[in-house]
Amino acid sequence: MAPDTTAPLPVVRTVADLRERVRAWHAAGETVALVATLGALHAGHMALVTRARELADHVLSSVFVNPTQFAPHEDFAKYPRDEAGDAAKLAAAGCELLYAPTLDVMYPQGFATAIGVGGPSEGLCSVTRPHFFGGVALVVAKLFLQTQADVTVFGEKDYQQLQVVRRMARDLDIPIHIEGLPTVREEDGLAMSSRNQYLTAEERARAPELYRAMTEAAAAIAAGAPSAAELERVRARIAAAGFGTIDYVELRDAETLVPVERADRPARLLAAAWMGKARLIDNVPVVG
Amino acid sequence: MAPDTTAPLPVVRTVADLRERVRAWHAAGETVALVATLGALHAGHMALVTRARELADHVLSSVFVNPTQFAPHEDFAKYPRDEAGDAAKLAAAGCELLYAPTLDVMYPQGFATAIGVGGPSEGLCSVTRPHFFGGVALVVAKLFLQTQADVTVFGEKDYQQLQVVRRMARDLDIPIHIEGLPTVREEDGLAMSSRNQYLTAEERARAPELYRAMTEAAAAIAAGAPSAAELERVRARIAAAGFGTIDYVELRDAETLVPVERADRPARLLAAAWMGKARLIDNVPVVG
Repeated sequence: MAPDTTAPLPVVRTVADLRERVRAWHAAGETVALVATLGALHAGHMALVTRARELADHVLSSVFVNPTQFAPHEDFAKYPRDEAGDAAKLAAAGCELLYAPTLDVMYPQGFATAIGVGGPSEGLCSVTRPHFFGGVALVVAKLFLQTQADVTVFGEKDYQQLQVVRRMARDLDIPIHIEGLPTVREEDGLAMSSRNQYLTAEERARAPELYRAMTEAAAAIAAGAPSAAELERVRARIAAAGFGTIDYVELRDAETLVPVERADRPARLLAAAWMGKARLIDNVPVVG
Repeated sequence: MAPDTTAPLPVVRTVADLRERVRAWHAAGETVALVATLGALHAGHMALVTRARELADHVLSSVFVNPTQFAPHEDFAKYPRDEAGDAAKLAAAGCELLYAPTLDVMYPQGFATAIGVGGPSEGLCSVTRPHFFGGVALVVAKLFLQTQADVTVFGEKDYQQLQVVRRMARDLDIPIHIEGLPTVREEDGLAMSSRNQYLTAEERARAPELYRAMTEAAAAIAAGAPSAAELERVRARIAAAGFGTIDYVELRDAETLVPVERADRPARLLAAAWMGKARLIDNVPVVG
């Protein structure tokens, strides 16, 4: 039965309430998909919900701005929050349940456990955000286990995160199928991101150069051009377009994320760079 | 239906085979208890199986000598292994399934995930075995998630381990009930342990002094005696009985394991000391 996309979205805030809903679905022999978010939802998140509806009988979304994946100087406090707006969007997309736990449900007093993932978390975003993937792995493991979801959809926009989450779930034997969804983009190619809100109109107009430069470099590398020169061209082009600090522009193995120089296996071109107050990331496939 | 305790015990070695068995039990609405072991089974383990049978419809045991909880200089290689003997004992005790995974089932190539538990893992055995509880938390999380067991029984003999496992499962929201079972002892009070096999006859005769000294100190502290002097008396008595290096003799909060000086809340007296080639540990409740 198709969910009623006009009714207000039920919200649960505790693990007990959450599991009661999921248990009822499972008891009826129905499957459940999780779309885990930090809120500030945009069309990219809606695409995750749409895909999740294809993969399972029911879709639930979590909205939780997870403090363990922000460093003290990062934008945890000012990260955009709008639960009512998020709930309306989720309901319209066919999500049936919103799980919005409080901080003390997720990290109660005495909480003492950490998860570390090596392998795909090495380098790239870890260089400037060393605590990020540990925080992500922890909260995602908790969300998987709290929800007992059968399937989950993560965006390829956060490609390193997707590979870290896959590694963590496989290594810990969490019984969930993880699907990656290609990045949803604005018409001019800019990857959708909650952090695009931080861009001024002028910065927003220049930001798509990141994707354009990466796409052309990926095609060149796939066709056999030396990768070092192509990566350098991306850096030069985005610097010329007004990007400030460039955290990285790198070619990596598409699954393990070990650095590679040629696309003789499926590879991924990944970049992170600052435009004004926004740290933008993007990635594109490189198939030689 | 009572299990047939004379038939040979079925053995599964992969997660897929394991889950197929457990899924059939769950599909029939029946519960499953896990008794996780390193093998080298003795009467203490059988008591865990007996208690597990009271708590669930089916009992499965895992036997896996987990390398991540041994340091390079420790006894991983010579840890006693006897799968056929273990299987016969488990079957006789009413266990219905043995899960004996290979190393590459547990830690396949590319494995990159670690779990750290602060809080109860601090101090005590962590001082001399700094990697131990991380290794335990990791393998136990995997076993909980591989088996999808509803309940598990751990011996209070490894009391710090029990509290670390409880903390980890609570923090990661693993839906399993964890029960602690009081330490099973030889007639003279020595806690049963696979490592008692390392004792010579003479050492074996002197080893029970650890438990005797701890029991008397616990009673004195419970009655109001200053704990520092009582802990010192335990050290002196076991040194006189032939124990060599004393790793620790400490009084801790019974749940959080933070150091305490009085038993004004439930506390625990814990000790670890070497007798010959065997590092023996023990603990007793202190209820003021």
